[in-house]
Amino acid sequence: MKDLAGMDIPTFDDVLAAHDRIRPYIHRTPVLTSAFLNALTGAELFFKCENFQKAGAFKVRGASNAVFGLADDQLARGVATHSSGNHALSLSYAAGRRGIPCTVVMPRTAPQAKKDAVRGYGGFIVECEPSTSSREAVFAGVVAASGADFVHPYNDPRVIAGQATCSRELLEQVPGLDAVIAPIGGGGMISGTCLTVSSTAPGVQVYAAEPAQADDAARSFRAGHIIADDAPDTVADGLKVPLKDLTWHFVKNHVSDIFTASEAEIIAAMRLTWARMKMVIEPSCAVPLATILNNPDVFRGRRVGVIITGGNVDLDKLPWMQG
Amino acid sequence: MKDLAGMDIPTFDDVLAAHDRIRPYIHRTPVLTSAFLNALTGAELFFKCENFQKAGAFKVRGASNAVFGLADDQLARGVATHSSGNHALSLSYAAGRRGIPCTVVMPRTAPQAKKDAVRGYGGFIVECEPSTSSREAVFAGVVAASGADFVHPYNDPRVIAGQATCSRELLEQVPGLDAVIAPIGGGGMISGTCLTVSSTAPGVQVYAAEPAQADDAARSFRAGHIIADDAPDTVADGLKVPLKDLTWHFVKNHVSDIFTASEAEIIAAMRLTWARMKMVIEPSCAVPLATILNNPDVFRGRRVGVIITGGNVDLDKLPWMQG
Repeated sequence: MKDLAGMDIPTFDDVLAAHDRIRPYIHRTPVLTSAFLNALTGAELFFKCENFQKAGAFKVRGASNAVFGLADDQLARGVATHSSGNHALSLSYAAGRRGIPCTVVMPRTAPQAKKDAVRGYGGFIVECEPSTSSREAVFAGVVAASGADFVHPYNDPRVIAGQATCSRELLEQVPGLDAVIAPIGGGGMISGTCLTVSSTAPGVQVYAAEPAQADDAARSFRAGHIIADDAPDTVADGLKVPLKDLTWHFVKNHVSDIFTASEAEIIAAMRLTWARMKMVIEPSCAVPLATILNNPDVFRGRRVGVIITGGNVDLDKLPWMQG
Repeated sequence: MKDLAGMDIPTFDDVLAAHDRIRPYIHRTPVLTSAFLNALTGAELFFKCENFQKAGAFKVRGASNAVFGLADDQLARGVATHSSGNHALSLSYAAGRRGIPCTVVMPRTAPQAKKDAVRGYGGFIVECEPSTSSREAVFAGVVAASGADFVHPYNDPRVIAGQATCSRELLEQVPGLDAVIAPIGGGGMISGTCLTVSSTAPGVQVYAAEPAQADDAARSFRAGHIIADDAPDTVADGLKVPLKDLTWHFVKNHVSDIFTASEAEIIAAMRLTWARMKMVIEPSCAVPLATILNNPDVFRGRRVGVIITGGNVDLDKLPWMQG
């Protein structure tokens, strides 16, 4: 579906097609609960565990939808992307499953574990500086040279339709949700969540959670237009990227509110999740729990789906062990 | 059922009764898989995730069965136990759910996280030295003074019947298993596994996995009688305790083999599970994966259930970060 500005906006039919296309390559991840965290928040929390997803994050859904939907005449030239991490792993994984080349432009400061994992899946890394501007410049050169299909980490209708399959599963797994909350960086997961929820369960509210130190989405939401920061600094390294036109479309039309949490609150929520739920989660996906704890009146007494977006961390550098 | 020596040996009817009794107080934990670990081992591994269990470990099954089966006239005097950790948490949790007192004798060297968790569930701790002999001496005093019902961490038919519900779920969740492997310390989980498997799926082999530095069960198995060490030293702190008559009954009659792994192999398997499966697991439950990697010819091409026994670790003291 094209909107008035010519954007190719994915529909729920695209979500259904994506789910059929990617099902052989993804896990239907479990939903876990914690009596301790329910008591602490006063809410009923249902954690959709995409940290147990293939390649360690939900991003494999969108990446697989793009890769397995490619036309035959594009296969030899493969795919390329820029990514702060999980999209890079996911696109490499999906390309590997389809047997096509995948080039990733990645900040040189990305966690070593993510670089190793990209290479482990067969992806080829080209490094850039850790800023949006450097990343985009380096990437333009890669695409010009290779003819690869650019699979944007979030501002791509194929990717959003893929991410939307996560909340489709969540709504099937947990009846009677009042709300869903997910982290927001570029907005791919939130856009997919908005697409599924607005199409199939419009009474369910969608909230986004963001680091206070990378709160461009929250400021955009209040201002009514996209505000982009070039290189925000936060432990939630998956959430540094700005909204783009397609994700902004979903955020502005379907998100009920965007909450923020400090770095210390994010790390505390991350450690609490590891300690009580026995799950390895990234800092990024601790942000929703941190904001639930910051806004008890919003969530108390409600059934809330919490999307745990990924579990790719460097186990030698845990944030609560650093000075 | 009493055997010739007068032991009260639990039957599969006891397992069914236990499952009905404890179901409101436990999670039916998920079974997760990892394509990476399947490729690495050549086997199909199905991880039964008792690290996501209430109180963080399978031991809540046996403890809940004992506590919720107590006669009314025992309730005021409560329960007591000695435990290197998870049974202590689990008995405290179950006693708290039933509203009765619980006293735990625990080595002073037990992880701080476990002591805090016992107290968090309302258990009362009496400390002893980190040896089996000290623990038993201190415990005798506690029971004499309080009249508490002794719920042994493993050598108790109520506890074994409770632990047996874990493999009952596993066999329902994964059809066509060829084998099940679990860690062995005192033998409670292995005994429960033997009880369920021999009763409902006698073609499935049961293997036990043990630290080489605390290999009393493996030596007992070879010798044909119980060999007990007083204070073995291993990172797998849940597996330091010796077999007793009731668990030995199951081990000697139903276990196919007992494999061992070194401390370095256990830590490597633990880190690998955290990194690839995004799960917080204790060193003890990395021992099965370590022994599968040590014995590829035994497991290759087979469908193997792997019981992940618990996830209670001190997140400030991870073994791969220590000198």
